[in-house]
Amino acid sequence: MKRKIRMGMVGGGRGAFIGAVHRMAAALDGQIELVCGAFSSSPEKSKLSGEDLFLSSGRAYGSYAEMIDKEKRLPEGERMDFVSIVTPNHLHFGPAKLALENGFHVVCDKPLCFNMEEAKALQKLVEETKLLFALTHNYTGYPMVKQARAMVKNGDIGDIRKIIVEYPQGWLSTKLEDSDQKQAAWRTDPKRSGIAGAMGDIGTHAENLAEYITGLQITEMCADISTFVDGRRLDDDGNVLLHFDNGAKGILHASQIAAGEENNLNIRIYGTKAGLQWFQMEPNTLYVKWLDKPMELLRTGVGELYPSAQAHARIPGGHPEGYLEAFANIYRNFAYCLQARLAGVEVDEIYKDFPTVHDGVRGMQFVESVIKSGKSEAKWVKF
Amino acid sequence: MKRKIRMGMVGGGRGAFIGAVHRMAAALDGQIELVCGAFSSSPEKSKLSGEDLFLSSGRAYGSYAEMIDKEKRLPEGERMDFVSIVTPNHLHFGPAKLALENGFHVVCDKPLCFNMEEAKALQKLVEETKLLFALTHNYTGYPMVKQARAMVKNGDIGDIRKIIVEYPQGWLSTKLEDSDQKQAAWRTDPKRSGIAGAMGDIGTHAENLAEYITGLQITEMCADISTFVDGRRLDDDGNVLLHFDNGAKGILHASQIAAGEENNLNIRIYGTKAGLQWFQMEPNTLYVKWLDKPMELLRTGVGELYPSAQAHARIPGGHPEGYLEAFANIYRNFAYCLQARLAGVEVDEIYKDFPTVHDGVRGMQFVESVIKSGKSEAKWVKF
Amino acid sequence: MKRKIRMGMVGGGRGAFIGAVHRMAAALDGQIELVCGAFSSSPEKSKLSGEDLFLSSGRAYGSYAEMIDKEKRLPEGERMDFVSIVTPNHLHFGPAKLALENGFHVVCDKPLCFNMEEAKALQKLVEETKLLFALTHNYTGYPMVKQARAMVKNGDIGDIRKIIVEYPQGWLSTKLEDSDQKQAAWRTDPKRSGIAGAMGDIGTHAENLAEYITGLQITEMCADISTFVDGRRLDDDGNVLLHFDNGAKGILHASQIAAGEENNLNIRIYGTKAGLQWFQMEPNTLYVKWLDKPMELLRTGVGELYPSAQAHARIPGGHPEGYLEAFANIYRNFAYCLQARLAGVEVDEIYKDFPTVHDGVRGMQFVESVIKSGKSEAKWVKF
Amino acid sequence: MKRKIRMGMVGGGRGAFIGAVHRMAAALDGQIELVCGAFSSSPEKSKLSGEDLFLSSGRAYGSYAEMIDKEKRLPEGERMDFVSIVTPNHLHFGPAKLALENGFHVVCDKPLCFNMEEAKALQKLVEETKLLFALTHNYTGYPMVKQARAMVKNGDIGDIRKIIVEYPQGWLSTKLEDSDQKQAAWRTDPKRSGIAGAMGDIGTHAENLAEYITGLQITEMCADISTFVDGRRLDDDGNVLLHFDNGAKGILHASQIAAGEENNLNIRIYGTKAGLQWFQMEPNTLYVKWLDKPMELLRTGVGELYPSAQAHARIPGGHPEGYLEAFANIYRNFAYCLQARLAGVEVDEIYKDFPTVHDGVRGMQFVESVIKSGKSEAKWVKF
Repeated sequence: MKRKIRMGMVGGGRGAFIGAVHRMAAALDGQIELVCGAFSSSPEKSKLSGEDLFLSSGRAYGSYAEMIDKEKRLPEGERMDFVSIVTPNHLHFGPAKLALENGFHVVCDKPLCFNMEEAKALQKLVEETKLLFALTHNYTGYPMVKQARAMVKNGDIGDIRKIIVEYPQGWLSTKLEDSDQKQAAWRTDPKRSGIAGAMGDIGTHAENLAEYITGLQITEMCADISTFVDGRRLDDDGNVLLHFDNGAKGILHASQIAAGEENNLNIRIYGTKAGLQWFQMEPNTLYVKWLDKPMELLRTGVGELYPSAQAHARIPGGHPEGYLEAFANIYRNFAYCLQARLAGVEVDEIYKDFPTVHDGVRGMQFVESVIKSGKSEAKWVKF
Repeated sequence: MKRKIRMGMVGGGRGAFIGAVHRMAAALDGQIELVCGAFSSSPEKSKLSGEDLFLSSGRAYGSYAEMIDKEKRLPEGERMDFVSIVTPNHLHFGPAKLALENGFHVVCDKPLCFNMEEAKALQKLVEETKLLFALTHNYTGYPMVKQARAMVKNGDIGDIRKIIVEYPQGWLSTKLEDSDQKQAAWRTDPKRSGIAGAMGDIGTHAENLAEYITGLQITEMCADISTFVDGRRLDDDGNVLLHFDNGAKGILHASQIAAGEENNLNIRIYGTKAGLQWFQMEPNTLYVKWLDKPMELLRTGVGELYPSAQAHARIPGGHPEGYLEAFANIYRNFAYCLQARLAGVEVDEIYKDFPTVHDGVRGMQFVESVIKSGKSEAKWVKF
Repeated sequence: MKRKIRMGMVGGGRGAFIGAVHRMAAALDGQIELVCGAFSSSPEKSKLSGEDLFLSSGRAYGSYAEMIDKEKRLPEGERMDFVSIVTPNHLHFGPAKLALENGFHVVCDKPLCFNMEEAKALQKLVEETKLLFALTHNYTGYPMVKQARAMVKNGDIGDIRKIIVEYPQGWLSTKLEDSDQKQAAWRTDPKRSGIAGAMGDIGTHAENLAEYITGLQITEMCADISTFVDGRRLDDDGNVLLHFDNGAKGILHASQIAAGEENNLNIRIYGTKAGLQWFQMEPNTLYVKWLDKPMELLRTGVGELYPSAQAHARIPGGHPEGYLEAFANIYRNFAYCLQARLAGVEVDEIYKDFPTVHDGVRGMQFVESVIKSGKSEAKWVKF
Repeated sequence: MKRKIRMGMVGGGRGAFIGAVHRMAAALDGQIELVCGAFSSSPEKSKLSGEDLFLSSGRAYGSYAEMIDKEKRLPEGERMDFVSIVTPNHLHFGPAKLALENGFHVVCDKPLCFNMEEAKALQKLVEETKLLFALTHNYTGYPMVKQARAMVKNGDIGDIRKIIVEYPQGWLSTKLEDSDQKQAAWRTDPKRSGIAGAMGDIGTHAENLAEYITGLQITEMCADISTFVDGRRLDDDGNVLLHFDNGAKGILHASQIAAGEENNLNIRIYGTKAGLQWFQMEPNTLYVKWLDKPMELLRTGVGELYPSAQAHARIPGGHPEGYLEAFANIYRNFAYCLQARLAGVEVDEIYKDFPTVHDGVRGMQFVESVIKSGKSEAKWVKF
């Protein structure tokens, strides 16, 4: 018998950004209920956040360790099923590890963790425990990204020759981290963000999107990594040449100093038969540029799309679906898989589609490779 | 003490479209919990829908009358706070009336009801009971629509001279009602839809949007109403000239036979200082065409927008918000107002912003006027 | 033996706008040579303009009458072949009549003339003399307009149900005619412009475009004509409902007070199989919105367009063609037809495609009907 | 006394593409007259082309050498003033050299010539003879490119940090050179095109555009050059990282195998205060993405643009100007400069703006550097 899945959250207290996004994404489809949380390192703040969120008194914990410990002791029909981790990068590993060790499934914000060592340890733990682990590379949740992936897989655009993936933002054009902007502060701090700034924060999304759609893997890269804002401690811009495992060539660039850009993730993929183009900021359109017939605009919810594109849209064409709906697709698929596991049944293949710890490991490898290449005088560095 | 608001739903069982939209919109912000429903006129189907939605056994009722009766007897901390009505037009009045008479607040899908008589009766009841009544003219929930309204109010575009509001769709280009398409069937059936087809279903959205943004009222109109598909029983297209109460002129046209159009609601407003343009299908951009300086693109979540635009956006600029978020703004504002009323406190003025029974009455007047004008040989018919 | 065609111009002296456009359009394809002109009512100014244009001394005349008289006496290999009339509306009839009476072909700016009486007289004269007469409804010269017309003719979009044609401009949002802006002055002056302002100046372009693409004729209309700027003597805005001879319904609106609009002529045509959309400001794209397959973007110079679209493009796809090229298509086709006539051969059917005196008469009828309807209390006025 | 400038053309006979473009560009503004040509290496074909173009008998020459020799002997009021060279790359040097040596000014298609040696020789000759030499890097002729350059120069966007210039085309996605497509044949033939294919043909346009707008110079580059189509003899794709002389970083990529792309040259420039974006295929819009205020769309002919943008537009805003008009700006400026020189007067600084032999030398250097870098294992190669 299917039931609602119960979520405990780590991080995401008052004033946080991504925690609220995770909660909306989890709530949208009515499959998941927030039952508890360790919302802040301050127990007081955590409690207040719990009240904001209408949690039962006593289930806003002072730490993730307490949460995991206490929830584990609750009866089966009551305790949380999984942990959602929405803290800064350096605080992913601890709760993820503890959750897995205690039998809780995990949804974790990206990038997976702080470094390769942590990443490999988590991967190992997931493999051993066989627990579900979703990583919120949310941009792959858009219906038109699913369509693109299906088209590539089906050979619609022929053999891929060239891939251009971009992620320009402008919000760190000035030294925002010197103000009290919380998001800027931790994302530019090596102690909390890791060895990379822009390349970790958004470069990994670009890498993940390119590999997800094409099914190809980057084999080597040549990176030009910069810090444009004086005194900033991590990179805020990177331009990278890519080689893929089928011989395709590519470019990935990501920036936080591209003045005036909002969140302009986009990708172009050129095959022998057609080119595809998709913009995250206009996510319901997929441009298909055919070699030998007029350009087509495929649209979310319109006409005969591939099943995976259809299964990840909620409303008829022309009613725009956005960021939260794409994000919610990860939570919904995760919930469907978990419900099926709990009920001992199989889930439709189409819903097994969400980023996992393996994508997380690959993301950490990307971060390490791209920073290494940026410092290298050799032209090509292996992924 | 603020608490989650409890919703009971009328309609929206398996296979319905708009019911699921209402549930997602209600769930998104974590302020509302679905606790019961009369999801279908078949008690059996209603029960199955209740199971799909993880409702407590016994709260999936066989009829709205049963729901209202039974819920009323539940203890205060348990019974539903409001009824959400998501049935076809001819089934709005009954549950709305009964809910109000029994002290339940109401959210109702548009158009308000079946005819002016019902509309006036509901309006009277709302005025007498002083209960909250929200009508889901959801398109006014978009942040950039709020921004447009604030700009007009603030005089940014000067005195309004011309308004063009369009709502072209193409989905009824063929006689879809002859297939088993449920949506097409009731929307083209005078017994369920009322005297108007396209003009009631989408024309009212266009009318509501124009009056909401401009703060003006249509005073008279000249309509050319058509049924293009052979054998269809209601209008599927209408072109209407408008006069507004400040002397502005306008055009409203809506169609369900505009082949290839998805859901292309859009509006242009020309004042003495600037023109505004907004497209529902690209809802996060507001085009401002200044008379004497370069065109600007205002964007959801970016820069210094008016407070009402900011208060109805959830995520930073460049992360597209869509139809469900706009729809959710009605539910969230309704919930905030209801929470405040239950707590005996005042709610911020900014959240009192949702369509009410008065918008519904105006919509029904629009329907009657436009159909009358369509049949009239006089040039102008009073609104 | 083909030779260059010799043009004499009436109007278009220093400071004029449309005269220079005509000269560039005539020059572009190397088929036409400007040999003489009566550029101004001041002989002095006319002479100076002649010098600017590198004309032979003695061929910048003091009046069109002098020009026609003197040119007629020149030897055949030297004298002008046709007259190009680029004066304000009230000064079209005189030179057109005299030119025709003296055996010169004519290209005339639109609208054809000042009123129906003049229009009919010119039409009669053209029929009697069998001379070539082109009217520069230049917007029909765009390749993608040709493509749209061919698609309609070929049945690609099925039976036409609805047509929306718009021509919003904002340049007369203030009382510009009170400054020394020459263009504004004559266009708002009933003595020079005729009975209509916006409806004559740009409404006629919209009417011509709609009828040209669809091959349909407007049969009746219902117009709401306004003058928004205080003290202006002619209309600056009009909203018109249309009926077409096949039963299609339509809307035409044109404005010069649509603040912030540049020259935003555009059209949408909905048939039973597809919708077409074209914007003059982005003229190389034709949007085809199919009822049952993805939207296509047809592009000037790309892929397999209809022959008429191909014959009116000059450069490969992606090299944007603009307003002057469309304008030049009228001159080039006119030149090809005239060259063929002079050589006594047939010209390819595809080049006989330019607006004539008959389009001009229809335009004058439109002006008279729309102004009449604007004043009428009857709903429908015959075209 | 100003007079029309007389042009002789080398190349551009029947069936050629770019020759016709040059003729239309030269004719548009009425400042230049085509008086003679050596249109083909076949004297017969040259003569036929001369007839097509209505040239005086006897001035369609059998070779450029003959043309230069014979024209030189004509009286001053009759002989050509300059030579326009529109042949494939390997045939630029000969006529350019001979023209300069015989006192004729030159307009030459890009790239300048076949290799650096030729380029330097021409540069030296231009410097010695002080004759005018224009190179048709036509994309810098667009008004909005002029506006972008002026904005950068004026500091409007602050210090430049990042530049992305792209030139994707798809027309060589298949081995078109094996068909009888003349354009494909010579452009992929090392004997006629030189050491580079795509990078010479379009990469040089991208390089020229980036340096023209920004006023910066590329100092070093890291190139990944590919030939995707089997059996093709030159590159058809290249991805290049760039360093500029002010410390800015950049990306240049150009491709002829980007399936479905037409001629999508575009550029983005990010400064400390704003980002600029321009697309050649939508050339009348310049996107200005401000760091701290709403995005603006600057438009050709609209509002208060910089003088250089205004001086290179011909018609009011909203009347799209295209590729030919931009191309014509080079010819017109060249003509104005030549007219002034012939009249012994100064020309306005604004018209001295066209690409010269120095741009051509820089382009050849770019070609050599980028091909060298493509083959190098070193990360950075000096420009």
